[in-house]
Parts: sequence; structure tokens; C-alpha cells
Amino acid sequence: MKDRFLRACRREAVDRTPVWFMRQAGRYLPEYRALRREHTLLTLCRTPDLAVEATLQPVRRLGVDAAILFSDLLLPLEPMGIPFEFQAGEGPVILKPVRTAADIDALRRFEPREDLAPVLQAIRLLRRELEGGVPLIGFAGAPFTLASYAIEGGHSTAFALTKALMYGDPAAWHRLAGLLAAIVGDYLRAQVEAGAQALQLFDSWVGALDEADYREFVLPHVRAIFAAVRGSGVPVIHFGTGTGHLLAAQREAGGDVIGLDWRLPLDEGWRRLGDAVAVQGNLDPTLLLGPRPRLIERVDDVLRRAGGRPGHVFNLGHGVLPATPVENVLAVVERVHDQSARG
Amino acid sequence: MKDRFLRACRREAVDRTPVWFMRQAGRYLPEYRALRREHTLLTLCRTPDLAVEATLQPVRRLGVDAAILFSDLLLPLEPMGIPFEFQAGEGPVILKPVRTAADIDALRRFEPREDLAPVLQAIRLLRRELEGGVPLIGFAGAPFTLASYAIEGGHSTAFALTKALMYGDPAAWHRLAGLLAAIVGDYLRAQVEAGAQALQLFDSWVGALDEADYREFVLPHVRAIFAAVRGSGVPVIHFGTGTGHLLAAQREAGGDVIGLDWRLPLDEGWRRLGDAVAVQGNLDPTLLLGPRPRLIERVDDVLRRAGGRPGHVFNLGHGVLPATPVENVLAVVERVHDQSARG
Repeated sequence: MKDRFLRACRREAVDRTPVWFMRQAGRYLPEYRALRREHTLLTLCRTPDLAVEATLQPVRRLGVDAAILFSDLLLPLEPMGIPFEFQAGEGPVILKPVRTAADIDALRRFEPREDLAPVLQAIRLLRRELEGGVPLIGFAGAPFTLASYAIEGGHSTAFALTKALMYGDPAAWHRLAGLLAAIVGDYLRAQVEAGAQALQLFDSWVGALDEADYREFVLPHVRAIFAAVRGSGVPVIHFGTGTGHLLAAQREAGGDVIGLDWRLPLDEGWRRLGDAVAVQGNLDPTLLLGPRPRLIERVDDVLRRAGGRPGHVFNLGHGVLPATPVENVLAVVERVHDQSARG
Repeated sequence: MKDRFLRACRREAVDRTPVWFMRQAGRYLPEYRALRREHTLLTLCRTPDLAVEATLQPVRRLGVDAAILFSDLLLPLEPMGIPFEFQAGEGPVILKPVRTAADIDALRRFEPREDLAPVLQAIRLLRRELEGGVPLIGFAGAPFTLASYAIEGGHSTAFALTKALMYGDPAAWHRLAGLLAAIVGDYLRAQVEAGAQALQLFDSWVGALDEADYREFVLPHVRAIFAAVRGSGVPVIHFGTGTGHLLAAQREAGGDVIGLDWRLPLDEGWRRLGDAVAVQGNLDPTLLLGPRPRLIERVDDVLRRAGGRPGHVFNLGHGVLPATPVENVLAVVERVHDQSARG
């Protein structure tokens, strides 16, 4: 049943619970490591044939119910005027972090059909390759998460500079977040136009905010993105980590499916969101590093908590970790499909 | 009123809400930076006169209601057989991370009166210096947080190796956590014997676990620490970050005061804990980087949510950030004292 992922996003009945994995194309796969021995991460993202190959690797090997475009959250930063690179073992490094109102006012909205053309071309090629197969998910980062990289200069734990800008110059923050929302809206619409059949908005780090700050500094911009893609007709997944305290506000901001990390049991998270929305999640990715019996027991626990209700997409609470044995990822796919098989 | 901190820990009436800050001795203070130009962090920790000076600096300058021993969470690792160092800009680096059951079985319980004698000597000197002044808080790291440094080799975000050890060899994990609990119990008792008048147990990173894992892998060991210090007669604060989903379980593990970070509003966190325990918190430390009006408004919001009930110790949700202007820290102390003044 090739449409079980899209049906679950719409809370329709499915034959089995669909499953895919954030970062299902990644270092845990030997064929991905082989690609990366030849090419940098950014070369893969910017070369349509290579992005297609990286996207398809896990689809071929795992039997997942969706493909997700191989790309990187940060790609929109460069054409808006924030160049970056990936340094070995360091993650992303923003060459000139955004720190002041003047830095923000120098940024520009761009045309993704021109400046991110290789990504859109990869989507078109993928739709051809996936003909008759699983649906393709496009994605982008949300304003808080993208802004945090732009402002901090890379990964962060306290988000001190990001919050200092928010608190210290709210008008400048809102210009930055508003520009990011406009760009992300354009980019996601262009992805759908190119063939993406679902979208995921990654607000991976927004759990560092309390609800009052989320509502003041983030929610209006995330809502603008959902408004921009509403007409596109594809389901949108709204994802964050550590957001147990923000779920009601994230739900208000938008999304057909809300992504849950592992910190809250799935039934508790779904209860906070209400029945009128689908959920995605929520196995702790570190369980895939460990022994099989505990892994399977926790897969079953997630399914039990979902209770066979329509509107559950099985996923991890965050991305597949590089040290994950491939056979454990396969075992999760098989177990989800077997345990959730309906009549 | 010099005992308002201890009275609040015991949920007794106070004239004003007591306030102190995690990492109140730190890089945001010019006099601390001057000390650090002369000495490394570990030299400060291991030289009683210098630890005394670093402890007293914020007490002199800020008018806080408690002193907290200047020390580092990792000190007990070295005498148990896990040497480490601090590398500039890198944080702690464990020289030979603990990865296997054999690594764990090579570790040893030690006598803090011998192997951590300079810390205990600093406490004795501090009690003399603080005579007639504010009470002195001792502290230690909790087993999960200490183990995560020992296993990962330093700071972590996903705690992948730590969880992989938990899941993959639960017996070895429980030996490690049990040994850490025994050592921390010994160490905290020795701190009280030397003169500490309250204790804080830092389980800073435990919010990365879900409640089931917390109950299986952490709670019994934390409970053992509380049992070990119960007879000492001093109040104990139990602190973590990102633990909104764990509060009920942390409460069961123990503590006279539960530390709350900023992610949940203080009244909501206190509601989850119940009335029979005091709370500490919970201003977002990044607010101290920003403009004064928002800072003061959020200080008032924390006090309003505490509602003047007995048993609130004002603090941040985590440590003071290095970039914090000293005058903002002072403004918080003054505002807490002014706004909470009772008849």
C-alpha cells in the first residue's frame, strides 16, 4: 500500500502503520559513507543526481513508507546572504554570523527556483525515479532554528545570542524571523511545485524557549509559513524536540501532523494535542544502538500507545544516529509493519 | 534575615524571598576573571584559599542569600580513576572515557576526606569567613550527569554512548551508577561534616531521558544518595534541566527543594510536584543578557507565580551565562527582595 504514509497524515485508515526515519539517508548506511568518501555534504545537496542517489539509498534498503529529500536545513541561508561551510567533525560554521539589526537588514529574499534550483531539480528527478513507489517528503528549517544557526554561528546549547537578540531588539528579531518565514514559505511552495508530496518543517531547537517566548517570537512566523503552503494541498509535518511544554502552542501554529520526540510517551503527547491532528514519532534514536529485545519492546510500546488510531506515522524522536547498526533500522521497519497489520 | 534561604528550603515563612544564582561565581564577574588570569579552573577548585575567594566574590558584591562552594562537578571523577582536564574553549575532556564493563570494574570508591581534602578544607574556611552571614551550600553531580561525562568523554547533546551502555549492559550501568551514588553520598556527607548547611544535587542533563528510563536507570541511585544524606539534617535541592516530564519521578527520588528550569512556568512546575515540597527557580538566564524592563517583568512574573507561598527560593533555571552584565544580576537580587518584602 504505497499511500499509507499520506493516508496516515490525513488521519485516514491504513493497512499498516507507515514508518520512515529522520536522517534515514546518513552515515549509518555503508553506501552513504561510500558516497561521502567521494563528495562533501554540500556537493551531495547541490548536485541533483547525487541528492537523488542519497535519497533513494534508504528507500531501496529499508522498505520505508516515504522518501525524504536528501538536503540540508541550512541551504537557504547562503542565497539570503549568510554563507556557511561544514568543517570536519565540527558541524556547520557560519562564516559571518548575524548579530545586529544592520546585519539583518542586509539580508535578502531570493527566488528558490533560481538560487536553489538544484534542490528542485532533485525533487523532479526523484518523482520520476519513485514513480509507482513511496511518496516524497520535502522539508525546510523553521525560523527559530534557522535563525539560531545564523546568529550563534553554528550549533548551540543555551541559544544565548539568539535570545539576547530577541529580547534586546524585538523589532530586528521579527524582521529576521519574518524574512526567514517568507523565504521558507517560498521554498516549500517551490518544493511542492517540483513534486514534493508532503512537507516537514523542522523547528528542531525551539524547545529551548518557554511558551510565552514561543508565542511572542516564534508562533506568528511559523503560522505564516503554514498559511503560505496551505493552498498546496500536501500534508505538512511540524517537528521539534524537547517541546512537551509547547505542544499546544505548536498545534495552534499549524501542521497536519505534529512530530513528537521521545521525552513524553506518545499517548500523553497526543492527548496534549487533541484528536484532530495526526502525530509522528516517537522512538528514542539511542534505542537503535542497543540490544534487539529492548528495541522491539519499545517499538511495541509506541504502537500500543498509538492504539491503532488513524493518524500515526511511526518515526524516531530525532534523527538516526551515525553509529546505528543498519540491521536495527531494518528490524524497526519490519516490526512496525508486522505489529500494526490490520485485518 | 540571614536564614531566609534555609527557612525557605524548609517551607517556613520568610521576610523576603531568598535569592542566589547557580554559577554566581563565574566569568561574568571581573574579579573572577582576574583570578582566572592567574590560575586554572582546577587550581581554584583544589586550593582552599582560592576556592574561598571565588566563593565569596559574588556574596560580597551581590547581596545574595546563600553562598555556594566554588568547585566543579567533575572533581570526584579523578580519585575514582577517571582523570580529566579542561581544554581552553572546549570544556572538560575525559582522558580515557569509560566505555566497557571492564572500565567500570576498574573504578574505585575513595575516601573524600583524603582524596578531596582541599574541597572540605575550603568549606571549613568558608564557614569561618561567613560567620554571622549567609549559609553555605555544598554540591555534587548526580550519577546520570557524572556518568554521561565519564562515558561520552565531555559535553554531549544526544548522550548516545551513555544510553547505549544503559541499554546494552544494564548490569554494568547499574554498577557504575551505584558506585557514583555511593561516592556522591560519601562526598556530600563529608561536605556537611565540614560545615555545608545545605546541599544541591545537580542532575543537569537527566532531562534527555524519558520517564521509564529515568525510573529504571536513575531513580534508585538518586534515591540512595538522598538516603545517605538524610541523617545530616541539612536541606537538599534536587536540580535538573528540561525535566518537565520527569518532575513527579524526581520528586519521588527525593529532595527538600526541587529545582525548576524556565521551560515550564513556576506555578505549573510546582503544581506537578505538589505542595509538600519547596521549589527553586526559574528565570531564563538569557533574560539577564537583555534589556532591563523585560528582565524585571519576568522576575515579577516568577514571583507572581510563586504567589508568596512558603517554600520558594528564587534562582535562574540554569547557571549565569559568562556574557551577563553584573548590573543585571544585581538588579535581579534587588527586585526579588523589594517585590517580595512581607509586612
